Amino acid sequence: MSSEAIVEEFQEYIQKISHLEEAIGLMTWDLRTGAPKKGAARRGEVIGTLSSEVFQLSTSSHLKEMISHLNQEETWISLDEITKGSVKECEKTIRKFENVPADEFKAFIILTAQAEQAWEDAKDKGDFASFQPYLEKIVDYQRNYADWKGFKGNRYNALLDDFEPGLTTDTIDEVFTQLKEAIVPLVEKISKQNAPETNYLFKKFPVEQQKRFSRKILESMQYDFQAGRLDTTVHPFAIGLNPGDVRVTTKYDEFDFRTAVFGTIHEGGHALYEQNIHPSLAGTPLAGGTSMGIHESQSLFWENFIGRRFGFWEKHFDLLKEFAPGQFQGISLDEFYKAVNVAGPSLIRIEADELTYCLHIILRYELEKALINGDIEVTDLPEKWNEKMEELLGIKPSHDGEGVLQDVHWAGGAFGYFPSYALGYVYAAQLQAAMQKDLPQFEELISSGNLAPIKEWLTENVHQHGKLKDPLQILHDAAGEKIDASHLIHYLTDKYEEVYNLREQ
Amino acid sequence: MSSEAIVEEFQEYIQKISHLEEAIGLMTWDLRTGAPKKGAARRGEVIGTLSSEVFQLSTSSHLKEMISHLNQEETWISLDEITKGSVKECEKTIRKFENVPADEFKAFIILTAQAEQAWEDAKDKGDFASFQPYLEKIVDYQRNYADWKGFKGNRYNALLDDFEPGLTTDTIDEVFTQLKEAIVPLVEKISKQNAPETNYLFKKFPVEQQKRFSRKILESMQYDFQAGRLDTTVHPFAIGLNPGDVRVTTKYDEFDFRTAVFGTIHEGGHALYEQNIHPSLAGTPLAGGTSMGIHESQSLFWENFIGRRFGFWEKHFDLLKEFAPGQFQGISLDEFYKAVNVAGPSLIRIEADELTYCLHIILRYELEKALINGDIEVTDLPEKWNEKMEELLGIKPSHDGEGVLQDVHWAGGAFGYFPSYALGYVYAAQLQAAMQKDLPQFEELISSGNLAPIKEWLTENVHQHGKLKDPLQILHDAAGEKIDASHLIHYLTDKYEEVYNLREQ
Repeated sequence: MSSEAIVEEFQEYIQKISHLEEAIGLMTWDLRTGAPKKGAARRGEVIGTLSSEVFQLSTSSHLKEMISHLNQEETWISLDEITKGSVKECEKTIRKFENVPADEFKAFIILTAQAEQAWEDAKDKGDFASFQPYLEKIVDYQRNYADWKGFKGNRYNALLDDFEPGLTTDTIDEVFTQLKEAIVPLVEKISKQNAPETNYLFKKFPVEQQKRFSRKILESMQYDFQAGRLDTTVHPFAIGLNPGDVRVTTKYDEFDFRTAVFGTIHEGGHALYEQNIHPSLAGTPLAGGTSMGIHESQSLFWENFIGRRFGFWEKHFDLLKEFAPGQFQGISLDEFYKAVNVAGPSLIRIEADELTYCLHIILRYELEKALINGDIEVTDLPEKWNEKMEELLGIKPSHDGEGVLQDVHWAGGAFGYFPSYALGYVYAAQLQAAMQKDLPQFEELISSGNLAPIKEWLTENVHQHGKLKDPLQILHDAAGEKIDASHLIHYLTDKYEEVYNLREQ
Repeated sequence: MSSEAIVEEFQEYIQKISHLEEAIGLMTWDLRTGAPKKGAARRGEVIGTLSSEVFQLSTSSHLKEMISHLNQEETWISLDEITKGSVKECEKTIRKFENVPADEFKAFIILTAQAEQAWEDAKDKGDFASFQPYLEKIVDYQRNYADWKGFKGNRYNALLDDFEPGLTTDTIDEVFTQLKEAIVPLVEKISKQNAPETNYLFKKFPVEQQKRFSRKILESMQYDFQAGRLDTTVHPFAIGLNPGDVRVTTKYDEFDFRTAVFGTIHEGGHALYEQNIHPSLAGTPLAGGTSMGIHESQSLFWENFIGRRFGFWEKHFDLLKEFAPGQFQGISLDEFYKAVNVAGPSLIRIEADELTYCLHIILRYELEKALINGDIEVTDLPEKWNEKMEELLGIKPSHDGEGVLQDVHWAGGAFGYFPSYALGYVYAAQLQAAMQKDLPQFEELISSGNLAPIKEWLTENVHQHGKLKDPLQILHDAAGEKIDASHLIHYLTDKYEEVYNLREQ
């Protein structure tokens, strides 16, 4: 077979994987947005069938043979960057599963399905003991998985690499230590201040009106409704089926409009990433966000750095008032801005504010790393969790349901994932700083509602590259920096000193 | 390999096909109900990839080997009815393509895609000549296809068999001749009468209200919203993804509520069929309507025999008035009933009424049969079409766009499909007659809105069997009859003599 023929076959092969993934994506979206419940069990089976086909195709000996041909020097130098990048992505997946015994993998999939059920019960009852046996097996598998996959330095690096390629515990330890040192005292300080008045936020805001406002905000953000749609769900998400079909979902709380507004902006940030990946990457494994952290940098940038900025509401507060007649009468822009930036210690990660959020993540990272390295055991988790909550946030859960059991991630076997949430904040602050240099009129653009140049900067520097650049390359090319927590620390310090009037004292 | 192992492998194999078909079905539904347009081209490719996988699986030598094992007598007698039926369904598909040369098939798929484009243009311009070369190639292929597949008696039987297994031109000639002889003079008679007043039907009826009424009607029909949903589309359809997920689509015309109401009832009839196929058939090739005609019998039964019945509106007219306040003020139930049953010759099949519809089908059947047998050629079609329109309906198209070019079916290569539309009417009338015997309180059930026993009768006699029974078996077991046009003729004669006051003269 000629090199050209192998290249062509490889391209068709990865395209087929991408097609199956698009079908799986649509079925997942459908299940979460409005599929009739009586068909759900069977739909799950269909997703299972297509997913195992993707798994087989992604790890097949045929793929390995094609890759080994493509890796031969005379062929390799003839490949374009996209094909080279695609080969590398395929190799990552192969490496990920290469040494995992098939029976162990299958058992793990079944285990996590059972564990998620057990977790739900355990969480409701605050009963860690009933979940512990599942979690022990999951942690065992994760430790083995790290060993099968291999790693340099810390064993946890094997897991990190699945979500945040290029990042290691050494770097994260440094970044998270800096964050702790800055945020913990800041949270202490603001806890002593009077919190902004927020009662009026919780008045009735009709869902239909919230929907209309959410659409307006997405349009403002340059989300393309010709290449997407907005639907309602229980646990909001954005999903890129292909670059021309990137869907946002959100949920509506009639008595707390913040859920929909900030949730939509957050998911809209994810969606802008997927909508603006370069079309030449479509159908390849490069057509997606380069890491969980960089993806989260996009959602957090829009939700917080834009959506919770004073300038954003300079433009949008009047619009909000139009959709919620009466609710904000007599409320000044300044009062409103402070109200949507209220911060302070809380127990639940997904309800945490922008300031304290990273502390929730750091807690989980420290526990995960210790677990994977065998420094602590699953049985120690509840106690360690509560100790760390007290240390980082000064509060303690009254039961494990609002403590160690609050997140589904561990039940689903997602170890190594949590750090990306905080890294997303760090990246977002770095990108903002770089953007402010490139766009000196940054603040005016936001306060005048002209968000297109901001979206274009992100497309230029982040979105379009898909997985062609890894997270650190994105940072390097966009900001000329390595990962650096100082931008986030400055941002948070400046903002919360202002919101909580700390500078006036 | 043991017989048991082969049976198990076969069952997994057909389940995989069914899973792929469910994914294709959802993607098709999505494209037609709200998928963003920028993603549509790629979605088409994904559907193409999965469809060719289904085709390969359905015709693979591996499947043929499994079937040949299962057909061995000692194995065959050990199989349950569902497995036997599944084997036979697989054999049908294999036979369908067995002798079709792969390159001819591929060329035909490409040809029909091009022909549909050419047809759209040709139809808009009323320009048959520009479409003729495509249609000639399609007819050539269909003639060859019939020869490759093989047939008894008339060559057209090979095509009929794909849509209406067990039916032949001999039977259809007889049935259609009876229909013509009864309907043509009846249409002539009513054309001389004063038509019912219909102006008030076309007042503004807000779409949101039509949607609510459509949902009510589906609930009345016993459509299960826990196993389905109602969405908006351009060309309405119902689609069964699995027995727990059968979706209805409809469209709304603000100035003609009949489009949505009767369209929803029609698609609801299809959906009831798919929702009530026996759960044990799920995941097998038997989980679908047994033929196009029987499927159409279900939609037409509900649309016309129920939905356009006086008794139905005895129950539902007041409800309709609630949703359309004012529009029907001062209109009596009798006037309304006659207005929604207005009938008479018209040019366009999809806009034709219940009385004249079959004549449109008979015209197409006669032309198709002559074409496939080489009795006429494509070039003769426009003239023959217009002659037959005059003969059957007494009117003539002013151009081919409203004549021979009006339907997409031929461009798509669907020859042998049209007869099923009229057979659906014939079957529906036979089923109604049988139902009336089994349910002596039939009329009261309808006028009191108690439609559950009617739906249950259909489930018992039609729905649950899926493809386990062929059309003639369904008729035999439900009605104790062969196909018989007299029920439809009696129904139409009775009804339209009443609506057009022919009996009083």
